[in-house]
Amino acid sequence: VTEAGTAAFAAAGPAVLDAQAIATRVGGTLRGDGTRQVARVAPLVRAEPDCLTFCAGPAQATALAATAAAVVLVPPALADAPAPGAGACVVVPDPQVALLSLLPVLHPPVPRAPGIHQTAIIGRGVVLGEGVSVGPYAVVGDGATLGARATVHAHAVIGPGVAVGDDSEVGPHATIHAGSALGRRVRVRAGARIGNEGFKYVFTGGAHVKMPHVGRCLLEDDVEVGANACVDRGTIDDTVIGAGTKLDNLVHIAHNVKLGRLCLVMAQVGIAGSVRVGDGVVLAGQVGVSDNHVIGDRAILAAQAGVFGDIPAGETWSGYPARPHREQLRAHAALYRLAGLVRPLERLLASRGDSPPDATGEGR
Amino acid sequence: VTEAGTAAFAAAGPAVLDAQAIATRVGGTLRGDGTRQVARVAPLVRAEPDCLTFCAGPAQATALAATAAAVVLVPPALADAPAPGAGACVVVPDPQVALLSLLPVLHPPVPRAPGIHQTAIIGRGVVLGEGVSVGPYAVVGDGATLGARATVHAHAVIGPGVAVGDDSEVGPHATIHAGSALGRRVRVRAGARIGNEGFKYVFTGGAHVKMPHVGRCLLEDDVEVGANACVDRGTIDDTVIGAGTKLDNLVHIAHNVKLGRLCLVMAQVGIAGSVRVGDGVVLAGQVGVSDNHVIGDRAILAAQAGVFGDIPAGETWSGYPARPHREQLRAHAALYRLAGLVRPLERLLASRGDSPPDATGEGR
Amino acid sequence: VTEAGTAAFAAAGPAVLDAQAIATRVGGTLRGDGTRQVARVAPLVRAEPDCLTFCAGPAQATALAATAAAVVLVPPALADAPAPGAGACVVVPDPQVALLSLLPVLHPPVPRAPGIHQTAIIGRGVVLGEGVSVGPYAVVGDGATLGARATVHAHAVIGPGVAVGDDSEVGPHATIHAGSALGRRVRVRAGARIGNEGFKYVFTGGAHVKMPHVGRCLLEDDVEVGANACVDRGTIDDTVIGAGTKLDNLVHIAHNVKLGRLCLVMAQVGIAGSVRVGDGVVLAGQVGVSDNHVIGDRAILAAQAGVFGDIPAGETWSGYPARPHREQLRAHAALYRLAGLVRPLERLLASRGDSPPDATGEGR
Repeated sequence: VTEAGTAAFAAAGPAVLDAQAIATRVGGTLRGDGTRQVARVAPLVRAEPDCLTFCAGPAQATALAATAAAVVLVPPALADAPAPGAGACVVVPDPQVALLSLLPVLHPPVPRAPGIHQTAIIGRGVVLGEGVSVGPYAVVGDGATLGARATVHAHAVIGPGVAVGDDSEVGPHATIHAGSALGRRVRVRAGARIGNEGFKYVFTGGAHVKMPHVGRCLLEDDVEVGANACVDRGTIDDTVIGAGTKLDNLVHIAHNVKLGRLCLVMAQVGIAGSVRVGDGVVLAGQVGVSDNHVIGDRAILAAQAGVFGDIPAGETWSGYPARPHREQLRAHAALYRLAGLVRPLERLLASRGDSPPDATGEGR
Repeated sequence: VTEAGTAAFAAAGPAVLDAQAIATRVGGTLRGDGTRQVARVAPLVRAEPDCLTFCAGPAQATALAATAAAVVLVPPALADAPAPGAGACVVVPDPQVALLSLLPVLHPPVPRAPGIHQTAIIGRGVVLGEGVSVGPYAVVGDGATLGARATVHAHAVIGPGVAVGDDSEVGPHATIHAGSALGRRVRVRAGARIGNEGFKYVFTGGAHVKMPHVGRCLLEDDVEVGANACVDRGTIDDTVIGAGTKLDNLVHIAHNVKLGRLCLVMAQVGIAGSVRVGDGVVLAGQVGVSDNHVIGDRAILAAQAGVFGDIPAGETWSGYPARPHREQLRAHAALYRLAGLVRPLERLLASRGDSPPDATGEGR
Repeated sequence: VTEAGTAAFAAAGPAVLDAQAIATRVGGTLRGDGTRQVARVAPLVRAEPDCLTFCAGPAQATALAATAAAVVLVPPALADAPAPGAGACVVVPDPQVALLSLLPVLHPPVPRAPGIHQTAIIGRGVVLGEGVSVGPYAVVGDGATLGARATVHAHAVIGPGVAVGDDSEVGPHATIHAGSALGRRVRVRAGARIGNEGFKYVFTGGAHVKMPHVGRCLLEDDVEVGANACVDRGTIDDTVIGAGTKLDNLVHIAHNVKLGRLCLVMAQVGIAGSVRVGDGVVLAGQVGVSDNHVIGDRAILAAQAGVFGDIPAGETWSGYPARPHREQLRAHAALYRLAGLVRPLERLLASRGDSPPDATGEGR
């Protein structure tokens, strides 16, 4: 059992790799001293002589020239770039992909310890898969199911009847309400609220009366939900987060929303009721989508966009209210140029005897 | 005790209703086969032959014509609309109001189980009303009061001296800090933070020094606070949420704010210090209100509006900075038309010998 | 041990101060009856005859004239302003600074009770400083360190190896993940998530693959993190919140962000990955900063600003996309004046035979 309910990576693992081993492991081309050793990973500008680092692209060429790292992962465009202080370079098609396979070697994750902590409360009829791990003070409701190798961290609360798939992880202090189901390899981070009742009221008898929510909240395989994010259950329909979609911290997903597969929903985005989002959509930070709209596949919404209509597939929109990004940029540039012309234009129109707009309503 | 601290509705209850019984129960007019039975509720487009559903209005007439539901609640405007696949229609003034009374029959809520879980910690001098329910690992501070039939879900923390009114509910992982009082039928959802100290500092001695917060945080009767929302206590005044007002997920209410009665405050809204909001106000998602302003009764603020002044009663405002909605729409439409005219207008002014704006400062 | 994990101030303490004692304590000048006594603090407009209150400035002169408070702290500009209902005035350079020293006397904080609650779980090798207080159901991971007089409130979870400095406080339901370190006098409020993994994925093999996060999350001395706020740990670099910086509720700080000293970050602000913020910066509510940008020392960003570039030191910017505040105001004013001129201007251009903008692309 992970005592304090938090996945941990070692600050520095016992593993040491040399440049040749790195090149072999990631299928890259070695340039320089293959015997140079690395014990940890650090960013390019702060890497010391025992570090592995990476260079994302030409914009970092100056930092590459100055680095003291033992080994640098570089893209093909920088294969011949000067790096006099580096022990070696390893040329790979995508340094970040290469890093992905090296990080767990140098910073191995703390191994899961299967088992049920003695303070965890397991309800009646709970089905526990092989190798589950349930942390201190976690509460698992009656009739819930935890798949093989599922992890429930400290202080998480799982409602009655909830299904948690194989290899999924429920973070510390997270709440999974009744009516929710999580697929495989789902990760719900600390303090996230899954399957809470939505914000649907009917005004009757002089009061806002809450509509009972009986729909489900479904997180498909490989979904991640960020810290303190909220995904409400449906009213009489279901809320669904498609496979492989990732939600960042403090995101709000309202009742009945359908999110497609492989979307990225960044921090503090809010999606109102019954919105349908396609596959591969990117919603940047603080985007808001008002209710019932449809966002097409692979659409991109820039940060803080306010969506009050449907968004066509494949397009990039931005601003408030959201418009195609190119139009938005053009309009904003125009506004700042026009701001200096208001008085001359008013004077010009006056000189022609054009009636003032407030009197005619023109321009509406 | 609700073992896992979450209110639950049965996915399908034992109850079955036929169309005639439904019509009788909601005072509607039956059209079609009064013997058709429903066992559950589903949305119009996904309803199967054992389902009750509803049609909100003419926009859904096509879906109504195609539904396979056993029984459809329809408004008077659709009393004669074709629904060949439906077993019966029940005509009612407001289908959603009718649904409100039928949902709990078909999906009965899991009954509360009064009692104090053996792991709950109840402080000294706590007053427990009749039929209270306190879940596992809940902590109730010294001198707190729980009214009759109050429910404190798993892992909730209630501070010392806090009063929770009759029939109120504190969700799992919620925190009610000292200095807070909840009326009757209040619902605080999972992870909400009530009565936290506000963000008031005085810069003195080279540091931001926190002003002690000794005001209260008062939630009047029938208030609901969404998941992970935060309502701060007052500094030397009180923060007050008026009766019947509902806050959605991730809302932020700062110190000293007074919210009126029957307001709807949607997800991710932020209200800064000492703002006064009237009755029946609607703040749509992600609205921000800067400090000390006054929002009149029944005002409506559209999603993402940024409020930097007072808002008159009864008006709808939108945008950044917020303006009357009609003006805002007109201005945005104008901007997109003007964006194409910048160069011709600049040329026109130049041809008249008007001096460039940067040299004259005109238009400021 | 603070049983319910919440710092509490007494609604009214045993202390009573008279006007003369107040003047002496804050170094102010007494006007009026030095024997008038106060037992509590209240806002100017609601102060009763046993109350201390303060008047912030001339804007409150009318309220001052009407107050019934026993004692009013007033600034020099109001030294001679009429306050016939007040028992006495005390003239001080800054009434709020004066209040700061009087509040704890009249509303003394409930004293900390050192000790480890019997239900707290303390991991192996935890180092406990002198006078620590650990509340009910708190979980402290293996190898963590709690400094002298550190307070861990009810239900907080501290990851393995985390360091919490002297006199720091971790609120109820807060999570401090492995890889985090808190300086001295740090306050993490209820439900905040410190050191969670960030939102960095690499798209490879048809999936968004999470980059392991091995950087740290460092909160320097005197940092405060608001309720339900999230500060992610770094990827291979660290996330750092500088000394004396305060974060309000529901703030999001992404991986690798460096925040300087003495910043104020108000509610619901979101800062994307690798942003660098200088010292003394103010980010007002709901501001968003996109990734990798630099914000100079003492810059101010107005509420809801959307930052898509670097911000120079000392400047005030606002709006979407953020621009210098003066330009933003001018542009918005211009827009509302221009909205009435669109039709006359179109007519004017047409009369001159200027081709329609859509055909020429002019103005882009």
